[in-house]
Amino acid sequence: MKHFSDYRDHFAQALRQEVIPFWEKHSPDSEYGGYFTCLLRDGTVYDTDKFVWLQARQIWTFASLYNQLEARQEWLDLALSGADFLQQYGKDQEGRWYFALAQDGRPLVQAYNIFSDCFAAMAFGQLFLATNKEEYAEIARNTFHKILQRQDNPKGSYNKLVPGSRPLQGFALPMILCNLCLELEPLLEKEQVEQTIDQCIHTVMDRFYDSESGLVLENVQADGQVSDTFAGRLLNPGHALEAMWFIMDLGARRQDQALIEKANERALFMLDYGWDQQEQGIFYFLDRLGYPPEQLEWDQKLWWVHLEAMEACLKGYLHTRNNQNWQWFERLFAYTWPRFRDEQHGEWFGYLKRNGGPLHTAKGGKWKGCFHVPRALWHNWQTLDKIIHKYERDPK
Amino acid sequence: MKHFSDYRDHFAQALRQEVIPFWEKHSPDSEYGGYFTCLLRDGTVYDTDKFVWLQARQIWTFASLYNQLEARQEWLDLALSGADFLQQYGKDQEGRWYFALAQDGRPLVQAYNIFSDCFAAMAFGQLFLATNKEEYAEIARNTFHKILQRQDNPKGSYNKLVPGSRPLQGFALPMILCNLCLELEPLLEKEQVEQTIDQCIHTVMDRFYDSESGLVLENVQADGQVSDTFAGRLLNPGHALEAMWFIMDLGARRQDQALIEKANERALFMLDYGWDQQEQGIFYFLDRLGYPPEQLEWDQKLWWVHLEAMEACLKGYLHTRNNQNWQWFERLFAYTWPRFRDEQHGEWFGYLKRNGGPLHTAKGGKWKGCFHVPRALWHNWQTLDKIIHKYERDPK
Repeated sequence: MKHFSDYRDHFAQALRQEVIPFWEKHSPDSEYGGYFTCLLRDGTVYDTDKFVWLQARQIWTFASLYNQLEARQEWLDLALSGADFLQQYGKDQEGRWYFALAQDGRPLVQAYNIFSDCFAAMAFGQLFLATNKEEYAEIARNTFHKILQRQDNPKGSYNKLVPGSRPLQGFALPMILCNLCLELEPLLEKEQVEQTIDQCIHTVMDRFYDSESGLVLENVQADGQVSDTFAGRLLNPGHALEAMWFIMDLGARRQDQALIEKANERALFMLDYGWDQQEQGIFYFLDRLGYPPEQLEWDQKLWWVHLEAMEACLKGYLHTRNNQNWQWFERLFAYTWPRFRDEQHGEWFGYLKRNGGPLHTAKGGKWKGCFHVPRALWHNWQTLDKIIHKYERDPK
Repeated sequence: MKHFSDYRDHFAQALRQEVIPFWEKHSPDSEYGGYFTCLLRDGTVYDTDKFVWLQARQIWTFASLYNQLEARQEWLDLALSGADFLQQYGKDQEGRWYFALAQDGRPLVQAYNIFSDCFAAMAFGQLFLATNKEEYAEIARNTFHKILQRQDNPKGSYNKLVPGSRPLQGFALPMILCNLCLELEPLLEKEQVEQTIDQCIHTVMDRFYDSESGLVLENVQADGQVSDTFAGRLLNPGHALEAMWFIMDLGARRQDQALIEKANERALFMLDYGWDQQEQGIFYFLDRLGYPPEQLEWDQKLWWVHLEAMEACLKGYLHTRNNQNWQWFERLFAYTWPRFRDEQHGEWFGYLKRNGGPLHTAKGGKWKGCFHVPRALWHNWQTLDKIIHKYERDPK
């Protein structure tokens, strides 16, 4: 039987020995700055395009590691290399962040995707904490305010829905704001932080929760009613699980145990609902009425889903000591560790087929970079430390 | 050993007894007109949205069956029900066809997708042949001219690529124009038809063909050079196979045997390249350098890919009597018939996992309606008749 500390040591060791070194070694673009993220199993670069989501997330990761794990200059330098690149090339004339850039920084794909902005704000927020340079705070704050301005129509002129025809709201942006407002708390005015937190908790916990089914939905009508449409039936268990640990973080900050318990219950429910009884692992997408989801990749098992699920389980366990949390965590770990982790080359595989075999063995691409694996390994390590401290102060 | 006529009878019987009745029974919307295409295995409607691609394709299918197979009034009526619906609700103020409508015709998704227009032109062209009503010819012609006007930037303001940054041309539109100009030949001026055919043949056979690898590419640079990017590395064997029988049709019309033979060689090459040696079937997407495609569904086996492949093999066999065509056809039939066909409820399953098991069992959705199955069954039946006539005039 494994102890808390065994799991903690697994996370710590994988982070320090397998994951950070992979990105340090293979991702830096020494010619133009920024990072390669399209990396094969052994780290070979197979495409040089630079996706702003992933550039920003890697800046955030290395700045966070510098701020929280260890103030190693090379980590800060790596973060700064990405920041220089994004400062020079990342934004369009209206101050919105592009979606994709060429290796040399030329813009390729317009700023249609507000999550580029969300991750840029996180990146420059962490860099401000690392360097105390006001210019980074300024970028983070300006970006944050633009996100709030755009939040009602994040895709702007690229929104293909006929205005007013079926006004559904998506879960992803309010969910990310839950995390972003805590990330940027040191840079924002207190009142704005509290107001944003109130709004986020309300949106995520009330509007997107279907009390009849107990499910956290991906898209709801403007009044919070469910919609019997492809988008309205969509479930993304990984999203829900990630959001529930964001909410637990907010609950911890506010010392609101009831909120934490509610978020934890919903996380456990979504985990149970999203679990593949036949082949194990958590489905990527489901239809809440059991119809075929539009997404052909619905039955695949994705790295980030399983990492966010473990994080939700551990944070829930820390705050509630609910046995179900621990049981789910162990089950997830047993599924995840041997299938996603690549002991030989470092980092994790991203995409498994329903049966748990690899869809491909690349370590990164257009949507996978240096973010979920190091973040979750670091958080899980820290959460397990807190669990040990809280519940095993005097271990046998 | 099966004879030509056995296969012909399989196609004819499946079309008449399993496929046409499925759509006649389950798809008509008696309340608002038009068709439901989101149908479960047994035909139950699970979503009522109406996608213009699929509305138009079903009009085309039933009008074609009326024109070519048998002048049954109920088939024409079914086509007209869809046409009335599309005439009333299908176009925006600028005469472009919407992508999606609600059940009652309200527009849901803007006209960002030029293939809605391509299939609308085909639909109204066939309806003109069925009814001789000039208003249908007018719609088809106007739509065709608008397609030609938009062909250099088909997505218009919904194009998210930064102008000039990486000007790749996509294969799908020139490929469809190959077929569309033959479909609309009776409605267009002779000179325009010949000009369009010249241009289509050149684009499909020269610009998108990589002579070094022998591959038909999905996206090329403006000057026809290959591009080492996600889009530039993408292969879609089903697209290439469908395009090659379009070209063989053009070759037959022009009595250009050399063109037919070239198209057939390329079809056989793409079939061999796209075939899954491990698990059989044709991959949906591949990367020409062997890297992971961006599309997570790359290894799935899709109904239309296998139908278009059989059609290319049979048309190639008719025109060249190449033994490889027949061997490939038999191999494809043996793979396809037991896995995609649903003897119990009619129509075909659409999506198989790499291993040949169903991804889901629905008969239609946002992208699958009444089109590829009946078209290919009908064409294959007719091609086999011609093969029998040509090569077995005096069978033993």
